[in-house]
Amino acid sequence: MRRIVIVGGMACGPKAAARARRCDPHARITVIEQGNTVSEGSCGLPYYVSGQVGSDKALLIRTPKYFKEVSEIDILTGTRATAIDRSAHELEILDLATGVSSRLPYDKLVLATGATAVAPSVLSGKDLKGVFTLTKIAHANAMIQEIVQAKPRKAVVVGAGLIGMECVEAFKARGLKVSMVEALDRVLPAFLDPEMALHVEKELSEKGVNLFLGQRVLHLEGDDNGHVRRVVTEKETLEADIVLLALGYQPNIELARKAGLTIGNTGAIAVNVHMQTSDPDIYAGGDCVENSHRVTGEKILALMGSTANKHGRIIGTNVTGGSDTFPGVLGTTIVKIFDLNVARVGLNEKEARRCGFDPVIALAPGADRASYYPGAETIIIKLISDRQTGSVLGGQILGKGDVDKRADVLVATISLRGTVSDIANLDLAYSPPFNGAMDMLHNAANVIRNKMAGQARSVSPMDVNERIRAGEEFVLLDVRSRKEWDNAHIDAPQTRLIPLNKLRSEAESLPRDTPIVTLCGTSIRAYQAQKLLEGEGFTNVRFMDGSIVGWPYDLVPEPKK
Amino acid sequence: MRRIVIVGGMACGPKAAARARRCDPHARITVIEQGNTVSEGSCGLPYYVSGQVGSDKALLIRTPKYFKEVSEIDILTGTRATAIDRSAHELEILDLATGVSSRLPYDKLVLATGATAVAPSVLSGKDLKGVFTLTKIAHANAMIQEIVQAKPRKAVVVGAGLIGMECVEAFKARGLKVSMVEALDRVLPAFLDPEMALHVEKELSEKGVNLFLGQRVLHLEGDDNGHVRRVVTEKETLEADIVLLALGYQPNIELARKAGLTIGNTGAIAVNVHMQTSDPDIYAGGDCVENSHRVTGEKILALMGSTANKHGRIIGTNVTGGSDTFPGVLGTTIVKIFDLNVARVGLNEKEARRCGFDPVIALAPGADRASYYPGAETIIIKLISDRQTGSVLGGQILGKGDVDKRADVLVATISLRGTVSDIANLDLAYSPPFNGAMDMLHNAANVIRNKMAGQARSVSPMDVNERIRAGEEFVLLDVRSRKEWDNAHIDAPQTRLIPLNKLRSEAESLPRDTPIVTLCGTSIRAYQAQKLLEGEGFTNVRFMDGSIVGWPYDLVPEPKK
Repeated sequence: MRRIVIVGGMACGPKAAARARRCDPHARITVIEQGNTVSEGSCGLPYYVSGQVGSDKALLIRTPKYFKEVSEIDILTGTRATAIDRSAHELEILDLATGVSSRLPYDKLVLATGATAVAPSVLSGKDLKGVFTLTKIAHANAMIQEIVQAKPRKAVVVGAGLIGMECVEAFKARGLKVSMVEALDRVLPAFLDPEMALHVEKELSEKGVNLFLGQRVLHLEGDDNGHVRRVVTEKETLEADIVLLALGYQPNIELARKAGLTIGNTGAIAVNVHMQTSDPDIYAGGDCVENSHRVTGEKILALMGSTANKHGRIIGTNVTGGSDTFPGVLGTTIVKIFDLNVARVGLNEKEARRCGFDPVIALAPGADRASYYPGAETIIIKLISDRQTGSVLGGQILGKGDVDKRADVLVATISLRGTVSDIANLDLAYSPPFNGAMDMLHNAANVIRNKMAGQARSVSPMDVNERIRAGEEFVLLDVRSRKEWDNAHIDAPQTRLIPLNKLRSEAESLPRDTPIVTLCGTSIRAYQAQKLLEGEGFTNVRFMDGSIVGWPYDLVPEPKK
Repeated sequence: MRRIVIVGGMACGPKAAARARRCDPHARITVIEQGNTVSEGSCGLPYYVSGQVGSDKALLIRTPKYFKEVSEIDILTGTRATAIDRSAHELEILDLATGVSSRLPYDKLVLATGATAVAPSVLSGKDLKGVFTLTKIAHANAMIQEIVQAKPRKAVVVGAGLIGMECVEAFKARGLKVSMVEALDRVLPAFLDPEMALHVEKELSEKGVNLFLGQRVLHLEGDDNGHVRRVVTEKETLEADIVLLALGYQPNIELARKAGLTIGNTGAIAVNVHMQTSDPDIYAGGDCVENSHRVTGEKILALMGSTANKHGRIIGTNVTGGSDTFPGVLGTTIVKIFDLNVARVGLNEKEARRCGFDPVIALAPGADRASYYPGAETIIIKLISDRQTGSVLGGQILGKGDVDKRADVLVATISLRGTVSDIANLDLAYSPPFNGAMDMLHNAANVIRNKMAGQARSVSPMDVNERIRAGEEFVLLDVRSRKEWDNAHIDAPQTRLIPLNKLRSEAESLPRDTPIVTLCGTSIRAYQAQKLLEGEGFTNVRFMDGSIVGWPYDLVPEPKK
């Protein structure tokens, strides 16, 4: 009888156990969990803190009793794995209640030890009352208790990553005044390129969140009762009644490291495509291992419940004699930030350049369904492709509309090595409640194809902003209607309005020796204007990627006369 | 100067014209349109009839004036193309207002002549007042006028295809009593397999639509004013104050046929991958041409605005000296039917069998996002894969939840020749507002992998229903909780309830010589039950595909005691 021991009872561990049982009805399967619960839906914690998920029971997906009754899996809660004796094939475990140690023999061992929220040991004040991290239901309950009982008024979220974003919204939902501090110069720095991050910052500001970017937190200060009251950064001192530290996660690798298993350069356990560690009888998966990036082959951290579940299934297959492989991840990320949905798939522009690609970019805004259909919302797609091959390298998508669909189409396309031409001809589902006749991905792919063919020439909004600030001489030619202009336009001396339908007749009024940058609402008319002016003999015309909808800086209305 | 003449001003034609202009600033481009408007958003017509789209202006995307001013494209409305003189490279056109004929020389000719709603000439009564087809804004306006002025109470929709479905909802929104007649034995017969179509029929019935399936319409009867009053079918006489004929479309090929261009077996114009007809100087696209199916290579009709737009871009490129190719379609279809979203991608099961595949099927119901997240809704995925290669052949998805996302992920996967293993490991975007840790597509793909590996064995709900009706001896083992059972279960003498967590201890009470079919809510526990019983030595156990949520027949609650 095969003995399978699994360390970790949250996502990957239970999945591996359940899958192993389905593959082998007779194996002896034991899961070691140091906490008192298993299978916590930890990704739902911010929505429990916010009150949208009404009970922590909804996040407790399975109990040890259920695993025993249904799958004859033994789960030892309150038990810590302390050491691996690889030569003896035994796991040393400690009963945390009794303090008694014992040894558990295994044929196959699985490490699913997860990750822990980073809380720098040097950060003084991190142990004050009212300071939290959020990875367990217990943390969420403590936060809710603090909010309900101590009635904090001001919250500070330290770290503008995914959990930070979700908790900003949760605090707001609880009626708190919220500030967010981030050491880097923009939000979601690990995922978004700057011009996309700016849209998120706009949304946060509009929802009343005070952003403090580009400043590290130096320390936290408390009152006489040992309760946090201030967050001191390099530049500011922020009042705080409750603080969430959302500085990221570090994989729990101590057990593996002590056992001499290979740890990758990412700081996580190294595994092969079979999810096998450097010891062929020890597998590892979930947040404690590193993953291969499917575009670059690089090892990266991808701490996602979705990835942990996939790992678990593969491990369950392989520890029972099967052979399954994991092809890696795309660093796919999605987060809801108030009314904005924000996703990243594959490489962003900066990563693409770092990896040696020559990226061609589309910044395509537009409606997420037929623009005349009620409820249509705008999204912005930044699509990134390799100039040499046309392969899709990555995408960033954000907006109030249907972002996740486009992200997942990109996931499938990139995973299967598709090109922008492949995207342009995908027979995507079309009917007005669901899409336009051309999906925004079609448009984005065609923008890149036009650029690769030398037909479309553009400048990025960041470049245009720089040139405005530098006072450069160029014409920023807005080709929208007067009504659209009056509603909102870019406030710069270089700006000029000629509606597209007048451009042919008024082209002669434009200077021939000055660069022209065209813009409209979503870049479609701006590109037409580029082509029109080129047809009229203008030689230095580019359109601005993303135009007004993609413009991440301020806009002004025309003053009423 | 290149002379490009385009016949047809709706979708493909204007797109081809605009693209041609962007590729060649100097070409002479002329579009011939027999109607008085161009670029109608005809896919939106049902939503205009329903009142959701408030004005027909929203559906008039572009005017001839706009094309002239912006793109120097001449659009001749009210003009019919009557013949092609291929040797002279001239198109004969007729000004419908003046009756004057003339000839237009071309270097490249584009046929984008569209399709016409089928209205069998033999159907007597089809010309009665109050009888409509719906392909143009003018039709929609006439229908709305009829509804507002004649105040019909009873509507009959003839044909249970896409337009029929959308118009059923539009009539309901206008407060009419609606009946639907279909010659075949189920709704959406061209798209859905029977067990999926049954869910649509349930939804229609629940929304108060009277369905009359499996009966052809024989004729329509009118009153003394020549206004329709009755629809007479093979089995029924239905009262009707307004009738929509939604019997499908036929490509408009007369011009092409008269010119001796090759017409395919589908009845549409044959084109190569460059969208070129049998005459290399004549291109064709949109509803009047046939398409290659990307899975089978077969020629099919795919009358979709989305496809017409793709054709138009490719034609615009190719008639100006470029070289672009169209890879074909997947027959992708999506339709909103009241609260149900319904999609089909690639082959359905029947088509897969007809084409010689040995399909492996998953019928996977589940939540469209984290089940604890507010607003989560159920969807059902029928995924179809080739046993030999694991390639994904097609999918049908329906439910109140996010159907279009999964459809489009399948589109990308099938287009790029992905397998179920590819799907199982897609790094799809995960966060509770958008998805579960395992997407329903992951689950569906894993069901197929389990079946292909011989681990999972199932029977379809249709088979189970047959076996119940035939009074066969088997145990239909419901492994849900008592509470779930009380709420709704299958009413059959073969049914028995043993909750999954009791199954191990009560397995001995099950007969060993009788087939057992397990079921639960979504099949996950049913599959676990199959594996559990096999582990206990039972040899004839299968789970029912789709279980209770996928069951398309009636369910009953437990009577209160």
